[in-house]
Amino acid sequence: MSEIDAQLSSEVAEQPAAGPVQNELESRRAFLTRTSLLSLAIPGVGAALAACSPTGGASHDSAEQRVGSTTDTGAQGGQPHNSDSRLDSAVLKREHRAATSATGSATQGAAAVAYHRFAPELPPLSGGATQQIHFHAREAPVRIDASTVVAAWTFEGDVPGPIVHTRVGDTVEFTLTNDVDIPHSMDFHAAQIDPKEAFKSVLKNESHTFTFKPRHAGAFLYHCGTAPVLMHLGSGMFGAIIVSPREPMPPAKDFVLVQNEFYFGDAVNGAHPSSFQKMLGMLPDLVCFNGRPNQYVNEPIRVKVGDRVRFWVVSAGPSHPCNFHIVGEQFDTVYLGAPPGNAIRGVQTFSVAPGGGMVYELVCDVPGEFPFVNHGFGHGQRGAIGLLVVEH
Amino acid sequence: MSEIDAQLSSEVAEQPAAGPVQNELESRRAFLTRTSLLSLAIPGVGAALAACSPTGGASHDSAEQRVGSTTDTGAQGGQPHNSDSRLDSAVLKREHRAATSATGSATQGAAAVAYHRFAPELPPLSGGATQQIHFHAREAPVRIDASTVVAAWTFEGDVPGPIVHTRVGDTVEFTLTNDVDIPHSMDFHAAQIDPKEAFKSVLKNESHTFTFKPRHAGAFLYHCGTAPVLMHLGSGMFGAIIVSPREPMPPAKDFVLVQNEFYFGDAVNGAHPSSFQKMLGMLPDLVCFNGRPNQYVNEPIRVKVGDRVRFWVVSAGPSHPCNFHIVGEQFDTVYLGAPPGNAIRGVQTFSVAPGGGMVYELVCDVPGEFPFVNHGFGHGQRGAIGLLVVEH
Amino acid sequence: MSEIDAQLSSEVAEQPAAGPVQNELESRRAFLTRTSLLSLAIPGVGAALAACSPTGGASHDSAEQRVGSTTDTGAQGGQPHNSDSRLDSAVLKREHRAATSATGSATQGAAAVAYHRFAPELPPLSGGATQQIHFHAREAPVRIDASTVVAAWTFEGDVPGPIVHTRVGDTVEFTLTNDVDIPHSMDFHAAQIDPKEAFKSVLKNESHTFTFKPRHAGAFLYHCGTAPVLMHLGSGMFGAIIVSPREPMPPAKDFVLVQNEFYFGDAVNGAHPSSFQKMLGMLPDLVCFNGRPNQYVNEPIRVKVGDRVRFWVVSAGPSHPCNFHIVGEQFDTVYLGAPPGNAIRGVQTFSVAPGGGMVYELVCDVPGEFPFVNHGFGHGQRGAIGLLVVEH
Repeated sequence: MSEIDAQLSSEVAEQPAAGPVQNELESRRAFLTRTSLLSLAIPGVGAALAACSPTGGASHDSAEQRVGSTTDTGAQGGQPHNSDSRLDSAVLKREHRAATSATGSATQGAAAVAYHRFAPELPPLSGGATQQIHFHAREAPVRIDASTVVAAWTFEGDVPGPIVHTRVGDTVEFTLTNDVDIPHSMDFHAAQIDPKEAFKSVLKNESHTFTFKPRHAGAFLYHCGTAPVLMHLGSGMFGAIIVSPREPMPPAKDFVLVQNEFYFGDAVNGAHPSSFQKMLGMLPDLVCFNGRPNQYVNEPIRVKVGDRVRFWVVSAGPSHPCNFHIVGEQFDTVYLGAPPGNAIRGVQTFSVAPGGGMVYELVCDVPGEFPFVNHGFGHGQRGAIGLLVVEH
Repeated sequence: MSEIDAQLSSEVAEQPAAGPVQNELESRRAFLTRTSLLSLAIPGVGAALAACSPTGGASHDSAEQRVGSTTDTGAQGGQPHNSDSRLDSAVLKREHRAATSATGSATQGAAAVAYHRFAPELPPLSGGATQQIHFHAREAPVRIDASTVVAAWTFEGDVPGPIVHTRVGDTVEFTLTNDVDIPHSMDFHAAQIDPKEAFKSVLKNESHTFTFKPRHAGAFLYHCGTAPVLMHLGSGMFGAIIVSPREPMPPAKDFVLVQNEFYFGDAVNGAHPSSFQKMLGMLPDLVCFNGRPNQYVNEPIRVKVGDRVRFWVVSAGPSHPCNFHIVGEQFDTVYLGAPPGNAIRGVQTFSVAPGGGMVYELVCDVPGEFPFVNHGFGHGQRGAIGLLVVEH
Repeated sequence: MSEIDAQLSSEVAEQPAAGPVQNELESRRAFLTRTSLLSLAIPGVGAALAACSPTGGASHDSAEQRVGSTTDTGAQGGQPHNSDSRLDSAVLKREHRAATSATGSATQGAAAVAYHRFAPELPPLSGGATQQIHFHAREAPVRIDASTVVAAWTFEGDVPGPIVHTRVGDTVEFTLTNDVDIPHSMDFHAAQIDPKEAFKSVLKNESHTFTFKPRHAGAFLYHCGTAPVLMHLGSGMFGAIIVSPREPMPPAKDFVLVQNEFYFGDAVNGAHPSSFQKMLGMLPDLVCFNGRPNQYVNEPIRVKVGDRVRFWVVSAGPSHPCNFHIVGEQFDTVYLGAPPGNAIRGVQTFSVAPGGGMVYELVCDVPGEFPFVNHGFGHGQRGAIGLLVVEH
């Protein structure tokens, strides 16, 4: 019995052998016969979620129950492509009344965890032509304000993960080590690479390395691509990789803002887990820049009069755009595609698609306090607001 | 008594002459006095839906009940412009507990209907300077996966309808024949033409022809424009018309992807009708490329290493954008307006507005399996995912 | 005791001194010690809303209760930046079962208020290099169709407020006088100015003046920026300021369309107030161009064959984009940034972000009746449709 089969068997022991579970088990067994498995496709998720629904997956009455019931799609083409996310599905089932991120070490010590502001400054380039990056996939309670701790799935213990800064044509050698039971993976939007291999799911205590050279400058999302992506991305596993063009851009104060949505389930051990059901409902509890509601209202971003300021804005979603706007200011330049090209001028508000990134520039020639917001105010009101203070 | 008046009378016989119905009837009679009627405007829908609501249209408490109660807007300008969709409104009333697409022949034989993959390849140009196209508006059960049949309103029996391919300056001579009780119409976004005449609703067993020459290249939506448009578009009556520029674009493998949302009511005869109420709620059950959830995961789109690949992406909605992204790849070009101009470069994700279309290009110089997704993952997770396989 | 403290004391007298209220009170007192207060930031709102929720703010179960509970964010940086919107918060509490716009004079005389079409024509430039504008913040019942009166918060008694037309480099000297109990303010997206001072909240019977020179041409939103912005913007306090470039654009018939969403609470005195809870739910009751559902269906916009037509489209939101499309037509030009640059060509549909504006042009060389719509039809169906009639 292979290690994976053994894991599967232990899962079985924990599960009543009900019809849908059994069917799912069989189909998962079939997946295991494939030598390579696609990390990012969705089928396989559905049955798990259907199984964890109190009413099963038979009804089409609600969106939540409906999602993913296409797992059993009878493809004419033989072997369905599928996810190797059998383990995370299993975890979701185990937490079957919740399907949340309140797993393993995600809530331990929640009461004691300290708040810290997420530094928005773009870190400098590393210098060399090759940059080695090593992230650990971890579960961790993350305090996002005085009263709220999130039971997060993370890269490096924070939400968002660390800002990566590289340059067109430089080399990124990335290693992911997975510290937890649920498989995780890394999908860099800045990489052009076979995701079946590079972005594959990594099992507990294993590591995986891949290398890429970004071709286009811009503000790119990275995120865990293990199925269900909605759950992994929505539970905190995302961040920004900023790719500078080879020719330097105009000198500026560079900041990185990653917008994300939080969808909370009932608190466990004082930490609020992310709820897959609420993610499917797409009405977020909070919408944040860099993982904390209103953090830059309380502790603003500060620049000097005359500074050119460049915001590298990434919309992690999982589902909504960021309608980026600065109160009292206008962007002289928004780069819709790779900077320093693809620019439009004289813009009050422009949307970054979920899963996308754009670069916004302005010259701060007026001193004052300028709120930056998601001007879709049903979202902005949920925490997607900060302050840019321009001082003499 | 005219034919239309006769139809109207037969409707009356089926309906209890309750207050709102009677009022609506009178206002519908007023519409009939107009010699030409606008197919696409909305008023007239509201009263029908209010009448089919269990609680009537008096309350403003819920969005669903509220929509369309503006029918009785007291316009100062005399005769209100209105829809000739009196018949479909009647049908909606007849199905008054549901207001779904489970009409007439939409569910017949659902259990026996076979699944087929929707071919995404852009068909070649027809060759001549004039192309004649003849579509039938039909109701049909359409199998979208092993376990799901949709009670669809269709062009030519499938969802989406056939891909039309033409060229700037060529002539499209289009005929719609309506096979069913509900009036239907055709709105080509590629046409510049008086919609009151060209896109008018066609009654059962009648045909209507119009001719147009596209002026701009691009990926355009077509859809039934009969009121309520939300219902007709949302029940399956949409597709893509691709307009190539006169100067050939760079050689590429061309594919067409139409994203749509499904909103299901309770199954009837084994087929899932589209629910108008759920369409108004805008939380879809499924989001698909070319009408089937995850169809290209099961049966991928295949190209060769070195191919330039061009996706003509149309967002049929009815309500949500398509945040198009390819995992492990980047678009070297996205055409925001008519190709071959209006391009931006180096893009990870860009949104196609509902009712819009854009063209995305990449060079597949890396072999592998690349999922393409709606990166708004609350939608992507509902089926808007496929696989692009790049082979040696 | 200062005037503001006196107001605060009277608020206290009306409120039971429950824990959360007391806490909020104390934190509001702290805000008052600051000599200047930021109008636009969000904290402070949350506690008020939590206090007016039947279940308090402790639970994270629903999005509505969750929003704003980050008020008490323990910032490391000392004094939190905050809103001076203590009074409107108080009002929201007073109406604590509703948190609606049905305040003071917003519903008086609702039954008698007359409907009027909102003129969409862009008014001519004023002529001089300096334009003086004086708006009053008022509560008023506004009839938006035969059966619906909105209990609106307004600029100048209408929704939207008056269209402002200026030119790059000209001077706008703006005065806001507040006629009502709730503080209000003005945020012009066309201004580059310190919002802490210029856009500050104005108390009842007070006035505030600021001056700015627009730098970029375009269709810009203006709105009340007093917290909670979602409530003020969503209750009717918005409009368009159109900035023409200094070099004249091609001659055209110029029209201004401002899209907004209405979210209604239970009627009071025959007027439908705006509901903050429903705004947070983001499922609107109506979506309108220039404040009235389908108004230009009933009374179309009329132009002549051969006219170039330019739509200055602003999306007020508060939360959704406007996916602007004209049935039977295409835009030869859409300006994504400041006109006359930043244009794309040959467009069927393009989205204006909430809080944004874009300019759309077409040549009306075909006579007919062309519906213009929000092609996100879940929204369009709620009233965001009009008619452009092109006549010989």
